[in-house]
Amino acid sequence: MTGMGRESFWTVDPSELLRVGKKFSLVDRPTDDTPGFDGDKEQGRGALAEGALVLAELQERMFATSRLGDRRRILLVLQAMDTAGKGGIVKHVMGSVDPQGVQLTAFKRPTPEELEHDFLWRISKRVPAPGMIGVFDRSHYEDVLIGRVRKLAPPEEIERRYTAINTFEAAQVACGTTVIKVMLHLSPAEQRRRLLDRLDRPDKHWKFDPGDIDERELWDEYQKAYQLVFERTATADAPWYVVPADKKWYARLAVQHLLVDALERMRLDWPKADYDVAEQIRRLN
Amino acid sequence: MTGMGRESFWTVDPSELLRVGKKFSLVDRPTDDTPGFDGDKEQGRGALAEGALVLAELQERMFATSRLGDRRRILLVLQAMDTAGKGGIVKHVMGSVDPQGVQLTAFKRPTPEELEHDFLWRISKRVPAPGMIGVFDRSHYEDVLIGRVRKLAPPEEIERRYTAINTFEAAQVACGTTVIKVMLHLSPAEQRRRLLDRLDRPDKHWKFDPGDIDERELWDEYQKAYQLVFERTATADAPWYVVPADKKWYARLAVQHLLVDALERMRLDWPKADYDVAEQIRRLN
Repeated sequence: MTGMGRESFWTVDPSELLRVGKKFSLVDRPTDDTPGFDGDKEQGRGALAEGALVLAELQERMFATSRLGDRRRILLVLQAMDTAGKGGIVKHVMGSVDPQGVQLTAFKRPTPEELEHDFLWRISKRVPAPGMIGVFDRSHYEDVLIGRVRKLAPPEEIERRYTAINTFEAAQVACGTTVIKVMLHLSPAEQRRRLLDRLDRPDKHWKFDPGDIDERELWDEYQKAYQLVFERTATADAPWYVVPADKKWYARLAVQHLLVDALERMRLDWPKADYDVAEQIRRLN
Repeated sequence: MTGMGRESFWTVDPSELLRVGKKFSLVDRPTDDTPGFDGDKEQGRGALAEGALVLAELQERMFATSRLGDRRRILLVLQAMDTAGKGGIVKHVMGSVDPQGVQLTAFKRPTPEELEHDFLWRISKRVPAPGMIGVFDRSHYEDVLIGRVRKLAPPEEIERRYTAINTFEAAQVACGTTVIKVMLHLSPAEQRRRLLDRLDRPDKHWKFDPGDIDERELWDEYQKAYQLVFERTATADAPWYVVPADKKWYARLAVQHLLVDALERMRLDWPKADYDVAEQIRRLN
């Protein structure tokens, strides 16, 4: 078993179980299972706290290494239907990492200026610097998801974008980025529960947008658009992971693992000083 | 006593004690006291954990309010000599806030492109959006600190900058920003201990830069430059706070309080829905 280094709580490496491979079929994937993890919610939360320490230390090592010239970095792309838990991943997984090592971008509806450029214009400005974990909360994939479902661009332009995305991501990989693409996979029934919960709680009304229900009514079209995304853009260098998201605690634990796994594969040591340590100590005495 | 709302652990509101007023004299300020707090390190850490929950909730309220059009936001400016603990503030104070509500910028030595512009060019691009807590790790004040000490600009240009800074900050305040400027006040002896600690630990070598000792040798000039900064830029709308920083736990607690205090003064409620809640519930049934 690989990639499970300092985390002790997986029965099988979930990276392999969650990665989109050939003949992947989204509609056949459950939304409520917990691949690689046998425990319950409480155990999952304990595991998340344990993994948080591992992730924070590995991230600091990558950051430190970058100060001495290493170019490696991570780009985590998060895509999902509304309420699937992207925000919770950012808060509860990325929240355990030193903010100095995280570069977060939430991509909203494009501005008029952004629409005047190619769809990758605003994306490429936000790729992470060396040593950082960049997180995209929504991304260039919106342009082939809502773009396709809502017919915001002609079919031939949508087609062109898959290739452009693969070319763009390959360039990121070539300059030292580990690209991790995650789709949080939710059931419509669970989404309904979460939307009703938001409507039921005045402290959550601000998180609700009537437009969320408009998109919900196009559920099947979105699932088909995701299926196409996987078929066209799940590459060896920039893989997709489909994470069951009906159980929020599992989705967080799984995404945390994908980051830990990527960092452990870098075999990061603390970088060696590029100055004479003894000489500097003398200067202070 | 004001501004102490949900935090129970202060004996006196530290905002008042730490704010730079008329006749402020930096050299007369201790670096190792704990104004407003009677407890020890362990109690300080407990208080920080308690305050973290208060800060996180208030920040979410400000963020929520901004989604419905409120323009308020916070800009926290951190300035200090090396090792004083700016990074620790970011990690341990801002680290308790949802990353989606924090916009952090660490200003480094200006790039050639940045040097081709006015010193506020790169700064103004990084001011926080509504609902956010923006954090500047170093800032435009470097241009009147190292700028003065190292004579990187002629004296009349340094003079001009104080006025430009006040004008710039007043404009931020006018569009809804609470500006909080913090100088972490360290003793040279404590800095020496911290530098030696970095040199003593291979996992901290990457945090050390021989240039830190070069700046250390100009300690008194930097303190004078800070004194001038306070005299020229401590305004009613954009006050400075000098926080004793020999005890890291106290500095973190004090800065956390300054943020909590600013947020409590906003009297934030959860924003009211701008849609018909009952109608949306019907759509889901």
